[in-house]
Amino acid sequence: MKLKEIAAALDGALVGDGEMTVDRPAHPAEAGPSDLALAIDPATVKLLATTKARVALVAAGADVPPAIVAHVSVRPGRYALAALTRLFDRPPLPASGIHPTAVVETGASLGRDVAVGALAWIGADARIGERTVIMPQASVGAGARLGADCVVHSGVRIGPGVVIGARVILHPNAVIGADGFSFATPEPGSIDTARATGKVSAANVGIAKIHSLGTVILGDDVEIGANSTIDRATIAATRVGRGTKIDNLVMVAHNSTIGENCLIAGQVGISGSVSIGDRVVLAGQAGIADHVRVGNDSIVMAAAAVGRDVPARSMVCGLPAVPRDRFLEQVLNVARLRSLVATVSDLKTRVAAIERTESARPGA
Amino acid sequence: MKLKEIAAALDGALVGDGEMTVDRPAHPAEAGPSDLALAIDPATVKLLATTKARVALVAAGADVPPAIVAHVSVRPGRYALAALTRLFDRPPLPASGIHPTAVVETGASLGRDVAVGALAWIGADARIGERTVIMPQASVGAGARLGADCVVHSGVRIGPGVVIGARVILHPNAVIGADGFSFATPEPGSIDTARATGKVSAANVGIAKIHSLGTVILGDDVEIGANSTIDRATIAATRVGRGTKIDNLVMVAHNSTIGENCLIAGQVGISGSVSIGDRVVLAGQAGIADHVRVGNDSIVMAAAAVGRDVPARSMVCGLPAVPRDRFLEQVLNVARLRSLVATVSDLKTRVAAIERTESARPGA
Amino acid sequence: MKLKEIAAALDGALVGDGEMTVDRPAHPAEAGPSDLALAIDPATVKLLATTKARVALVAAGADVPPAIVAHVSVRPGRYALAALTRLFDRPPLPASGIHPTAVVETGASLGRDVAVGALAWIGADARIGERTVIMPQASVGAGARLGADCVVHSGVRIGPGVVIGARVILHPNAVIGADGFSFATPEPGSIDTARATGKVSAANVGIAKIHSLGTVILGDDVEIGANSTIDRATIAATRVGRGTKIDNLVMVAHNSTIGENCLIAGQVGISGSVSIGDRVVLAGQAGIADHVRVGNDSIVMAAAAVGRDVPARSMVCGLPAVPRDRFLEQVLNVARLRSLVATVSDLKTRVAAIERTESARPGA
Repeated sequence: MKLKEIAAALDGALVGDGEMTVDRPAHPAEAGPSDLALAIDPATVKLLATTKARVALVAAGADVPPAIVAHVSVRPGRYALAALTRLFDRPPLPASGIHPTAVVETGASLGRDVAVGALAWIGADARIGERTVIMPQASVGAGARLGADCVVHSGVRIGPGVVIGARVILHPNAVIGADGFSFATPEPGSIDTARATGKVSAANVGIAKIHSLGTVILGDDVEIGANSTIDRATIAATRVGRGTKIDNLVMVAHNSTIGENCLIAGQVGISGSVSIGDRVVLAGQAGIADHVRVGNDSIVMAAAAVGRDVPARSMVCGLPAVPRDRFLEQVLNVARLRSLVATVSDLKTRVAAIERTESARPGA
Repeated sequence: MKLKEIAAALDGALVGDGEMTVDRPAHPAEAGPSDLALAIDPATVKLLATTKARVALVAAGADVPPAIVAHVSVRPGRYALAALTRLFDRPPLPASGIHPTAVVETGASLGRDVAVGALAWIGADARIGERTVIMPQASVGAGARLGADCVVHSGVRIGPGVVIGARVILHPNAVIGADGFSFATPEPGSIDTARATGKVSAANVGIAKIHSLGTVILGDDVEIGANSTIDRATIAATRVGRGTKIDNLVMVAHNSTIGENCLIAGQVGISGSVSIGDRVVLAGQAGIADHVRVGNDSIVMAAAAVGRDVPARSMVCGLPAVPRDRFLEQVLNVARLRSLVATVSDLKTRVAAIERTESARPGA
Repeated sequence: MKLKEIAAALDGALVGDGEMTVDRPAHPAEAGPSDLALAIDPATVKLLATTKARVALVAAGADVPPAIVAHVSVRPGRYALAALTRLFDRPPLPASGIHPTAVVETGASLGRDVAVGALAWIGADARIGERTVIMPQASVGAGARLGADCVVHSGVRIGPGVVIGARVILHPNAVIGADGFSFATPEPGSIDTARATGKVSAANVGIAKIHSLGTVILGDDVEIGANSTIDRATIAATRVGRGTKIDNLVMVAHNSTIGENCLIAGQVGISGSVSIGDRVVLAGQAGIADHVRVGNDSIVMAAAAVGRDVPARSMVCGLPAVPRDRFLEQVLNVARLRSLVATVSDLKTRVAAIERTESARPGA
């Protein structure tokens, strides 16, 4: 890759010979003579003095040592990393066409330049958009529809009838469109009675499955992490909006709706019939109870257990989740309890002493 | 589907022409002219006035507008939804027989009308009951036994020798019968010493694997969610009782026993050698420490971290989990700490003032 | 298996006829006449009086009843169980060689006696060490390297270029080397502003993917549980050190480094760029925030949410995690809040009474 190509792709300023080529980006401490030393982060700039690399990527304004014979400078921040890594990402994908060991059932239709890898399975009447890549051993259910330019990694299971937009990336072993976890008892069960009365006053007998007739709809540019699961809806659709990125081992239960451009980190759990707005951030291991609504641009912090609606542009933490400021205050107050207990004990002694003095007083 | 068939299947009362047919159930706001508007929930009944559907499903006693030319009324509650969705569920399953790309090893025996989908693998000496469906790309380990009428979805991994009852549903990528997470060190390790003394006073060196010679036994009518894992026991069996339903991304560790008709929600973690009674509900992301016993009909609330035995018919929440009433009181008390701190500070000032007055008094 | 062979393998003392043979180890209450009754745990020794087994494994010093005609005695503790279960573990593995339905792409090189099971896929230029077993339907990505004597279970997905040591066990459906969850916005997003100001004052628009050019490196003797995921690094490598054991449904995010001989229990979440020392124990459902460092020999207790560095040899619990002693004290103090509130309320009344008395006094 020529330095001038990197400068162009990153909209950066080139200093030095743009015809120089690099093999790959690397941390300055690990870079070899043919690597591009990555020093966008100010803390790494000083490592350029001792790197083996001869060219570097730096933030505008960085003080580049003379050993670096050419460099590209970009706006500070991690955004340049997106363009740079995209430039160097050359994942080994199967060639377009259907691998002879793949199974494509009757009625499935594949767009131009679709690649279906070894041992993959495409169900009847599925429709797959142009240039989409189905990696080895993935499954596309009967009647599912995928847009163009998707990548479906190995072991992904797309259920029947699921609808997926364009440029969607599904990481290995993700499951899109399993049945919702939905059951009913003939008489009100333990949860119904506990909700109503606060006590367990009924037993769950005769559990009947509520089948999932609905589907899952993923918008364009969605990304779903490895081993994550998005369940189908009971009647309508579980939805993940355009541009939303979901990390590994995340669960999205039936009937929920997630807005656009959300970032949902690892092991988050979203219960049934939840509504998440746009640009919401859910940090790792957070959980959202069923039917809760989370407003646009909110941030649910790591491990928070959200039982109530969250207004737009707010931050919540804790178990149960409360606004962040209140959470921090509570944590501080709990930490101070030892001293509070001591103070109260001291006051008790002093008040008792005063009371004794008072009662011993002649006029008492 | 004829309206009179729906009424019969749901044990409901038919009002109007039972020969009318519907394509599918739908929310009143989304239903088309050939759909069955679903208005069991009282909140949706008023939407019947404006729905495009001509027939509806309502709870007994609902006020059905005249635009609905026929309807079925059922007992209030979600139970009718189970029968209704079952009626309309027509999942695309592979035809009975063995797909030519499936691999069935020597000695495996398949009951009448078993379906083995494309690229599935059945290990040596496995036995599969009548009408059970193995979806594409699933695995059944050597010597495993499955009952009749099961559905094993794509990517499910059933370990060698695992025993599964009848009518069991295993959702995509669930793993039944991986090794337990069980290790030993030659000398007492960090956890042993920490349990004994409260301090870390040993290091884990020479970690040796305790192999899992046992198995997993799943009762009839069990359902295991997508990407959940049930580990095999060390010597005997990890057991999930009849009728128990487990959601996605749940872990059940080795040697644990789960009773009948439990409901275990997404991302719950059950450690080793745990005993869960019958009809227990574990809400999302709850965790149960090893060797803990949870009594019949108990409810462990979302995100609870249970470190001690839970008596029957109780409700627990929190980290560490305590009875629900106590948890709610604690949450309230913590929320009031700011005001308590202020009160104590005020009392401190006032007591000091009294003490000053007292000591300044002539008789002091 | 002859009793004398068991004694030799366990470095135990044989009492009685070493030529006696046993079929398998079993709990004394469940053992048959040809089983080895397992009574290492003192609590089970008394069950030997009524077991059907004729031979037993006991801890040194145990009082073995006469009905047990021969026994092996070992050092107390669970360590003997490791050697014993290893002796009896005979998992059904595919024969060495490449199953005719497996797909091995061009340039892949397999060591001596490698077994590639049915429907497995080996990408181009992958290198697999001697005697390693690839179970049916597993994937090995292009250019990945595996050491000798590994077991890669069904449904495992090894990404391209991943590097794996010797004797590594990967349990079913584990994913090693999916993309990191890493994104950037052109302008500072909601999390950046929230970190800086405590308020959400920007929206996440234009989310761009930071591609994962790096890899995953797993040391020798590592074990990764079913459905766990280890993401590749951005530029360098996500690392799991020699001898570390990871349970099911665990997530290790990009750029993190885990030391040697750690034990990481089910559903633990390790965020990006975390550093975990050697011999660290992370109990179930614990979470570690990004960039946090956890020192050698530390224990992070179940469900703890770790937001700050943890010193070596320490124990932490809670949300947010604090040292264990402080956590236990806080839990106790919170439990006593009801009584503290009552005490403060009583003091308030008494102080007010004193103040009234004082102000009513003639000299006031």
